[in-house]
Amino acid sequence: MLVSTQRIEHDLLGDLPVPQEAYYGVHTLRALQNFPITGIPISTYPNLVNALASVKEAAALANHQLGLLPEHKLKAIVQACQAVRQGVAHDQFVVDVIQGGAGTSTNMNANEVIANLALEYLGCQRGDYAALHPNEDVNLGQSTNDVYPTALKIAAYMGIVQLVHAMDVLRASFERKAEEFKNDLKMGRTQLQDAVPMTLGQEFSTFAVMLGEDEDRLMEASKLICEINLGATAIGTGINTSPEYAPLVCHHLASVTGIPVTTSPNLVEATQDVGSFVQLSGVLKRVAVKLSKVCNDLRLLSSGPRAGFGEINLPPVQAGSSIMPGKVNPVIPEVMNQIAFEVIGNDVTVSFAAEAGQLQLNAFEPVIAHSLFKSVAHLRAGCLTLASKCVDGITANRERLQSLVENSIGIVTALNPYIGYVNATQVAQQALVSGQSVAEIVIERGLLTQVQLDEILRPAMLTQPRQSIVLR
Amino acid sequence: MLVSTQRIEHDLLGDLPVPQEAYYGVHTLRALQNFPITGIPISTYPNLVNALASVKEAAALANHQLGLLPEHKLKAIVQACQAVRQGVAHDQFVVDVIQGGAGTSTNMNANEVIANLALEYLGCQRGDYAALHPNEDVNLGQSTNDVYPTALKIAAYMGIVQLVHAMDVLRASFERKAEEFKNDLKMGRTQLQDAVPMTLGQEFSTFAVMLGEDEDRLMEASKLICEINLGATAIGTGINTSPEYAPLVCHHLASVTGIPVTTSPNLVEATQDVGSFVQLSGVLKRVAVKLSKVCNDLRLLSSGPRAGFGEINLPPVQAGSSIMPGKVNPVIPEVMNQIAFEVIGNDVTVSFAAEAGQLQLNAFEPVIAHSLFKSVAHLRAGCLTLASKCVDGITANRERLQSLVENSIGIVTALNPYIGYVNATQVAQQALVSGQSVAEIVIERGLLTQVQLDEILRPAMLTQPRQSIVLR
Amino acid sequence: MLVSTQRIEHDLLGDLPVPQEAYYGVHTLRALQNFPITGIPISTYPNLVNALASVKEAAALANHQLGLLPEHKLKAIVQACQAVRQGVAHDQFVVDVIQGGAGTSTNMNANEVIANLALEYLGCQRGDYAALHPNEDVNLGQSTNDVYPTALKIAAYMGIVQLVHAMDVLRASFERKAEEFKNDLKMGRTQLQDAVPMTLGQEFSTFAVMLGEDEDRLMEASKLICEINLGATAIGTGINTSPEYAPLVCHHLASVTGIPVTTSPNLVEATQDVGSFVQLSGVLKRVAVKLSKVCNDLRLLSSGPRAGFGEINLPPVQAGSSIMPGKVNPVIPEVMNQIAFEVIGNDVTVSFAAEAGQLQLNAFEPVIAHSLFKSVAHLRAGCLTLASKCVDGITANRERLQSLVENSIGIVTALNPYIGYVNATQVAQQALVSGQSVAEIVIERGLLTQVQLDEILRPAMLTQPRQSIVLR
Amino acid sequence: MLVSTQRIEHDLLGDLPVPQEAYYGVHTLRALQNFPITGIPISTYPNLVNALASVKEAAALANHQLGLLPEHKLKAIVQACQAVRQGVAHDQFVVDVIQGGAGTSTNMNANEVIANLALEYLGCQRGDYAALHPNEDVNLGQSTNDVYPTALKIAAYMGIVQLVHAMDVLRASFERKAEEFKNDLKMGRTQLQDAVPMTLGQEFSTFAVMLGEDEDRLMEASKLICEINLGATAIGTGINTSPEYAPLVCHHLASVTGIPVTTSPNLVEATQDVGSFVQLSGVLKRVAVKLSKVCNDLRLLSSGPRAGFGEINLPPVQAGSSIMPGKVNPVIPEVMNQIAFEVIGNDVTVSFAAEAGQLQLNAFEPVIAHSLFKSVAHLRAGCLTLASKCVDGITANRERLQSLVENSIGIVTALNPYIGYVNATQVAQQALVSGQSVAEIVIERGLLTQVQLDEILRPAMLTQPRQSIVLR
Repeated sequence: MLVSTQRIEHDLLGDLPVPQEAYYGVHTLRALQNFPITGIPISTYPNLVNALASVKEAAALANHQLGLLPEHKLKAIVQACQAVRQGVAHDQFVVDVIQGGAGTSTNMNANEVIANLALEYLGCQRGDYAALHPNEDVNLGQSTNDVYPTALKIAAYMGIVQLVHAMDVLRASFERKAEEFKNDLKMGRTQLQDAVPMTLGQEFSTFAVMLGEDEDRLMEASKLICEINLGATAIGTGINTSPEYAPLVCHHLASVTGIPVTTSPNLVEATQDVGSFVQLSGVLKRVAVKLSKVCNDLRLLSSGPRAGFGEINLPPVQAGSSIMPGKVNPVIPEVMNQIAFEVIGNDVTVSFAAEAGQLQLNAFEPVIAHSLFKSVAHLRAGCLTLASKCVDGITANRERLQSLVENSIGIVTALNPYIGYVNATQVAQQALVSGQSVAEIVIERGLLTQVQLDEILRPAMLTQPRQSIVLR
Repeated sequence: MLVSTQRIEHDLLGDLPVPQEAYYGVHTLRALQNFPITGIPISTYPNLVNALASVKEAAALANHQLGLLPEHKLKAIVQACQAVRQGVAHDQFVVDVIQGGAGTSTNMNANEVIANLALEYLGCQRGDYAALHPNEDVNLGQSTNDVYPTALKIAAYMGIVQLVHAMDVLRASFERKAEEFKNDLKMGRTQLQDAVPMTLGQEFSTFAVMLGEDEDRLMEASKLICEINLGATAIGTGINTSPEYAPLVCHHLASVTGIPVTTSPNLVEATQDVGSFVQLSGVLKRVAVKLSKVCNDLRLLSSGPRAGFGEINLPPVQAGSSIMPGKVNPVIPEVMNQIAFEVIGNDVTVSFAAEAGQLQLNAFEPVIAHSLFKSVAHLRAGCLTLASKCVDGITANRERLQSLVENSIGIVTALNPYIGYVNATQVAQQALVSGQSVAEIVIERGLLTQVQLDEILRPAMLTQPRQSIVLR
Repeated sequence: MLVSTQRIEHDLLGDLPVPQEAYYGVHTLRALQNFPITGIPISTYPNLVNALASVKEAAALANHQLGLLPEHKLKAIVQACQAVRQGVAHDQFVVDVIQGGAGTSTNMNANEVIANLALEYLGCQRGDYAALHPNEDVNLGQSTNDVYPTALKIAAYMGIVQLVHAMDVLRASFERKAEEFKNDLKMGRTQLQDAVPMTLGQEFSTFAVMLGEDEDRLMEASKLICEINLGATAIGTGINTSPEYAPLVCHHLASVTGIPVTTSPNLVEATQDVGSFVQLSGVLKRVAVKLSKVCNDLRLLSSGPRAGFGEINLPPVQAGSSIMPGKVNPVIPEVMNQIAFEVIGNDVTVSFAAEAGQLQLNAFEPVIAHSLFKSVAHLRAGCLTLASKCVDGITANRERLQSLVENSIGIVTALNPYIGYVNATQVAQQALVSGQSVAEIVIERGLLTQVQLDEILRPAMLTQPRQSIVLR
Repeated sequence: MLVSTQRIEHDLLGDLPVPQEAYYGVHTLRALQNFPITGIPISTYPNLVNALASVKEAAALANHQLGLLPEHKLKAIVQACQAVRQGVAHDQFVVDVIQGGAGTSTNMNANEVIANLALEYLGCQRGDYAALHPNEDVNLGQSTNDVYPTALKIAAYMGIVQLVHAMDVLRASFERKAEEFKNDLKMGRTQLQDAVPMTLGQEFSTFAVMLGEDEDRLMEASKLICEINLGATAIGTGINTSPEYAPLVCHHLASVTGIPVTTSPNLVEATQDVGSFVQLSGVLKRVAVKLSKVCNDLRLLSSGPRAGFGEINLPPVQAGSSIMPGKVNPVIPEVMNQIAFEVIGNDVTVSFAAEAGQLQLNAFEPVIAHSLFKSVAHLRAGCLTLASKCVDGITANRERLQSLVENSIGIVTALNPYIGYVNATQVAQQALVSGQSVAEIVIERGLLTQVQLDEILRPAMLTQPRQSIVLR
């Protein structure tokens, strides 16, 4: 790459030319050289970039209050952090999402970009670190080991809120369908075999309830990740910080972000522990498992058009086949299934990375973060897509639903209280062999009259607990 | 197998001879023939057997109250259920832990054993189902689809309580060691590289805190599994039950078990959903990940005796090698690691089985149950073993701990506020090259005096946040 | 437990009373006390017990040949090993399948049982180790670190052979059905949507081919596990063995077992590497994934009887429901699904345990072995059950198959070459809206005659590549 | 986005404006709207884009030969495909890597881009599909269901070749170090406890051997994926193709790519089966597990500098800490660990997606492809980085290695044949308690002389099988 001008920066390993226009510096550049893995920069996760800026702002505020950071530096740093949170310079957060070093490169990237932005506001040149230093000023009183996990938690919290919002949208879509289909009687199935009747509304209502429960679990998990270890510095002993620092920086971080963060009571534990990420990943996996099950059901219920269940129609969103005229496929549920499979795999990655933590730190938090952020973002995209491109447009095949119930053998279960289990079994067996309907056989055998059958088989009688009626 | 006498029982498929002495019947026998998979009977999980008996007792009480079960049958069934809960006839719960049929065989096994026990109390022959019927009396108003998940939840709840107790034991053991080692200064390590000092007590305290947090998560998960679907019958519509039944049976089940069960507000959803099991499995995985990390640390800290870290000694519990004289290995942490790996694998099994549920039921609950019950039981055994066979007997190598701190380069971090980062870095580099101690170099360079060093490097100054001291 | 007499044995930790009747000794007893985890003894895996006996026999033969083991000890040890391989004393292999210590306890258990059996043949008392010693004679020239992985490989090989045999049985069953159904035209489906016609025979043939390919992969994996590290002793350097030992013991092991074992060219690598187990586990996972897919298809194709696909019938093997008269469920495919889920979870356990190996040894081989042996045994049981209890009895619903094809829109694809894609699409769309058959519309529109249609839609024309015919 | 001009394209759902400059068309645009999931376009995988172009070229050649595609269209299509393979228009392959529809959108994207490139060569406007049609010409005789899996296999094959090359580089690096360190005696360790001596060269040689074995497994897996289903069309029955087509297109594809592809003997099976991808994923997981283990070892051996094992030094590649002066971390092995964790998670995703295939197709191949391609690319990047940034620069701490051996208790094992196991055990125990060296004690006790010890403990005697020497 030809760059007109370069500046020289220095680190432990010596000098390195940095593109003059870059807001990042030598440490970021080393990381670029060291970790050419996925080609995906951390700016892929705007929540993470914003979270880093929030932590740096909170630390500057605390340090200033403790007399460690002069006013002009504070102002410049705060201005830089706020700019980043408004979207400025996100393209300068370039280190790879999969990186060694326990997040040091991400932290250094943030320190350098914020320092050079701040230098700009102070009227200084990029790289003029004598005026304001990435490490000594922006990172003052901090260590990657407390900054990085804290930023991950802030970013995860923001992601969860966005995901829950998308799940709300999907849930509302299912609820509208549940209402729309509330009077459509259909056969329920267990183990893929015809069971007893229910309404299509009950089926869709179930999807909504499942989502609601998952939202509750996500909110619970979001509370756990509000416990941060800022102030822990290197290993949690808080070496080289004053006792006032931890509570102060936590207070400012809560103000800056609006997230109810608290300082962990045991910072040594909090610095090495990734339990709250494992928990969150487990809940995301749960969400994935359930959404995949829902999509499996949607695909099954819409199978056909003629040789399948054919109970509902998904709206067509693209041509399904170049060879088969008129074929339309359930592509939106299919994409959600695949997101779910990815999330479940991500959970295994998180488990491995969490288990591999050693002694006072988990060096593998970058891949934990990458896995979680992917899962959150893709689930969110999937929910919004599923709602708008699929569920909103679902229609019911009312005639088929009704005919399947009427022709079913399963409705014989509802006759148990009136004709007895032994008679019911005989009726069922005759129906299976002869192909007749249950009603036909029951009337033929003189067990019940058509009027009685109509009374017993009213939808409201079939789809909820009820007292046995007295037959006339 | 030669059996002196047999009785003939009948089912949908025809007649089958059942050993006269068996309390189980034809349905159990079919299941034995159909599922010769693991050779492990469900009686391996006494909590499950007891939970089934509890559900059957609660149902009998509710049915009697609704006028559906006569007094003499109630008494006999209750007596049978209580006997089972006291350990009677557990060897009659013989169906394989991995079975098809969504738990039907387990439910049938319970119905048959309880019916034949009850018949005994009524003075009737085994198999005299005209007097009291496994299906029509013991299973009255129930379906496998509500009985089985409810019993799994009761059993899981009992298992969690036992596991948490074992974790308490292990946590107390770690806490005692934290107290014992609270004054032993040692090097902390991040990314396996020497970092800054801490106490061995802080290290062990961390293990205790981690366990405590996991216990909290388990208790949260246990609350979720208190929501049951008893009264749902086949698919959640409660077909063939009266509206009073569900609240009544829930009330009795809470009384019988002492577990605060509640009826799910949406029984259709509750019947097909296995979300609470997925959640519990995720939490068990979290427990496993953390315990494995702890055991990795214990093995690392005790590595040696001469060519490793050598900071602590695990008590020897068996000879380590037939070929290497005197070798002792960390076998107890190793067994916990392996339990953890098993639990993490079980979680993947649970995810698969949960995702595979279709429409109104999840047919794969048996393998979910098997996975969860294994995880709970093995984690419990592991915690108790780890506490009594390992942690309780751990000793510290105080001289080595101290000498590693004194010879460390990492303590230079603590000098930053007094000699500056630039000087500190030069001292560190000289130490690395020359092999000298930091103290030696600092004094040699006239940066600090021995007295000042002693003051700065007091353990209490190194292992918690503190104000910089004013050097004399 | 009351034991009339006990003998005292001694180890590194001191004296311990051993039940006089036990063939195992003090090291086994320590292991029992140290690892009360699953309650499942290693005798659960007879292949492993037999493999251990084979290794011990081969080592004795090699040692005798090298002049290290006298004739009378050789004879007694060989007799003991052969007895074990014939099933003697398997109940004495009591250590837990999940154990710490890298298999030391399993090896010690084998040494002790074989020593005491051999002592019996020598006319000595149990525990009279001066006459023949578990460690110095039975374990002569060996280390757990070479004995244990070698025995695991022998056992795994035997297990694979048994599994492949069971897969052969299942494959033959599918092939018979493929032949039986070879003329039954049916609709093929992609993405659960009606696609184009095929035969039911082709569908079942696919299942057979999949199994055959998996058998090939298993046989490949079995070749990899024939490379053993016997002679490596502690870490692969072969310390304390002569250069002749490794080739000699390998030769004898091949003779004793009939398995073409070879000595690894790099014993240091071979001692720490568990790659061949990871490979085998991956192949077992592949088998599981495919069998689960097959069972999903069987359950889908047999869904109904009236509100599902209803194309085939699975033989009923047990009553399906206590509440729904006449309901029969696909319990045999369901049990295979669950075995598959377990195997996939086991693979994750194996990955974790393999990754956790450190330096010159993998201490977690016991849980690798447990996982593999479970997977092999349960897959085998599942295949045999699926063949005999399900596939052998499957019947086709010929009328329904035919009517679904005739009423399908998908057959329009076959008309593309004769009426063009544009006409075909219009026909498809009219069919979807009007509910008419494709044939009806095509004739109505004058695109083709009934005679021409009959010619084009002959099964042989639809279900394989063919030249377009010239229409009359 | 403001676009000056647009063209209108048409599909099943109606008209849609396409940016005039786009080479892709309406189907691609629908997919962009339907699948806004990851933001990662399929062009991220150049191998896949190239593979698609290869398949299209081979199909055009076969169709021309069968008289179905005129000369001028053939030439234009071939020119377009070759251009794509040279890197042209890769930015037009824009559909999301996670997409519903079993790869239809990817296939359509390729058809459209190649058609519009071909139109350009024919001097026609973009979108002038009357002249050359994406579907009727570029996709002639094909279906997504045979094109897509075939392209995935071609791409995977190319990826494996690249990965194996990178593994070769890393293996060579380990081999150079093995040679460099071949005389450096060190302590071997089992279960993290000091065992017996070996050379550092043997340790590094092991890493090389492991890699070599994994390369062999990858090459085996690459052979399996050479079996393609091109010619299967919709479900494998080859509907609407002539019998000559499948062999012909396979022949051309082999020529175009240089990859030894063959046509599967059973195309129905081959169209729905993803077994070869599952197998490949399993092997990639194996590679990951082993590389992670190697990196764990490198991090452990280089732990320190003073409070760890300290046997080797990894080259510093970036500053390790902002707070701890002079700290350098093993960031390169750490990034490989994380790649490994990702790959292991990807394998679970693949298992889920594979198991979810239904009937005649697996709709979830896109996420299988995404997972595999990520794993291959990241493992490759990791191997190259590990070789050049880490292994190449590793140095040994020879003094420490030697002193650890001399002070070890483990060398007592080598004395067994000379002083007996009982004496050896006593020496070991005395050493452990007193802190003395084994040599000291042995001489003190008069068991051996210094001269004899020197003879016995020569490195060549310790690190390979050898005859016991006759002591003078």
